[in-house]
Amino acid sequence: MATVNPLKRRGLLFVLSSPSGAGKSTIARMILESDDGIGLSVSATTRPIRPGEVDGVDYHFVSNEEFDQLVADGRFLEWANVFGHRYGTLKSEVVKQIENGRDVLLDIDWQGTQQLKQVDPDIVRVFILPPSMQELDRRLRTRNTDSDEVIERRMSRAAVEISHWAEYDYVFINDDAEHCRKLVHTVLKAERLKATRRIFLHDFVRTLIG
Amino acid sequence: MATVNPLKRRGLLFVLSSPSGAGKSTIARMILESDDGIGLSVSATTRPIRPGEVDGVDYHFVSNEEFDQLVADGRFLEWANVFGHRYGTLKSEVVKQIENGRDVLLDIDWQGTQQLKQVDPDIVRVFILPPSMQELDRRLRTRNTDSDEVIERRMSRAAVEISHWAEYDYVFINDDAEHCRKLVHTVLKAERLKATRRIFLHDFVRTLIG
Repeated sequence: MATVNPLKRRGLLFVLSSPSGAGKSTIARMILESDDGIGLSVSATTRPIRPGEVDGVDYHFVSNEEFDQLVADGRFLEWANVFGHRYGTLKSEVVKQIENGRDVLLDIDWQGTQQLKQVDPDIVRVFILPPSMQELDRRLRTRNTDSDEVIERRMSRAAVEISHWAEYDYVFINDDAEHCRKLVHTVLKAERLKATRRIFLHDFVRTLIG
Repeated sequence: MATVNPLKRRGLLFVLSSPSGAGKSTIARMILESDDGIGLSVSATTRPIRPGEVDGVDYHFVSNEEFDQLVADGRFLEWANVFGHRYGTLKSEVVKQIENGRDVLLDIDWQGTQQLKQVDPDIVRVFILPPSMQELDRRLRTRNTDSDEVIERRMSRAAVEISHWAEYDYVFINDDAEHCRKLVHTVLKAERLKATRRIFLHDFVRTLIG
């Protein structure tokens, strides 16, 4: 057999979106834990750090002025305003991983996904739906961190987020996190196998038929 | 949870191509045996029946005149001429399975795949490569059914077939049939999960956000 490096491949931009409370973060964590080939893109945000969060791990926490500067310098792949706070994906977070053949998981909303699709049409977009709005409401209340007013705002924002479901390549209903993780993982594994992403195939076919 | 029928989906046209001897038929058989959701489309052909073949199972064996009539009546999704014999996919073989939400495996060559892609851009195309041309030659000789002249012709046709590899969505090197089957099966499972194929999602989202 011809000696080719099967690892010579282009990393994948793998987008996971969902309304807050649908379980996206849990699914993302499970994927990152069960798969060595994918890493998280840590977003920059202007929202205040919460207890337990770590700067540079959960987010890059920046001031409004710093965020303005990053925008002005063209440092973002996408950014969006959510409830008065801004969130953005730094090019630097993504490029290095992609070039090393690693995939990047992006936890972004429908606005960011639309922007990213413009920049790179080759992204894979997965949307996670809650099993019901009642269940979503229950999950948001169980967190016990938000006031009624904030929860109402989140629920109305959830409806907007969900209304963009058809802009995604894959859409899953999260009524069981492990089942949902399995579906998302199947998609990740198959998308990695796309011929356009397996650059080594060009060399291999050349050794085959010259 | 809203009551929706998760089976309400559109069947998939799943194309498997490869040069003769690369193991496509073995992979196809393994997929059909390990997955209940997919059935084979039995092609019509003008080539003579071989010992052990069953009409209606391996192929629909038809005369040149019958094939002409099927072409004239627009009964084919695609057809191609290979070594002086014609092979075609009958619409009737495919439509019924697709409408019942079953996937259809099509064992066709690059010419047929090009035609089918024109008719239905939503097809999934998988190409199987041999690990080397030496191995392909060896496999063709091991069959012990063809003369040297026929094998040479097959080898030169193989090079032509392989030259179309980049027209396929997924391309796998068959150096181990079970490993190759696993990759093809991962692709099949993930492609079924595409949002556009899961028609029930429309109803589900309607129950969610009205």
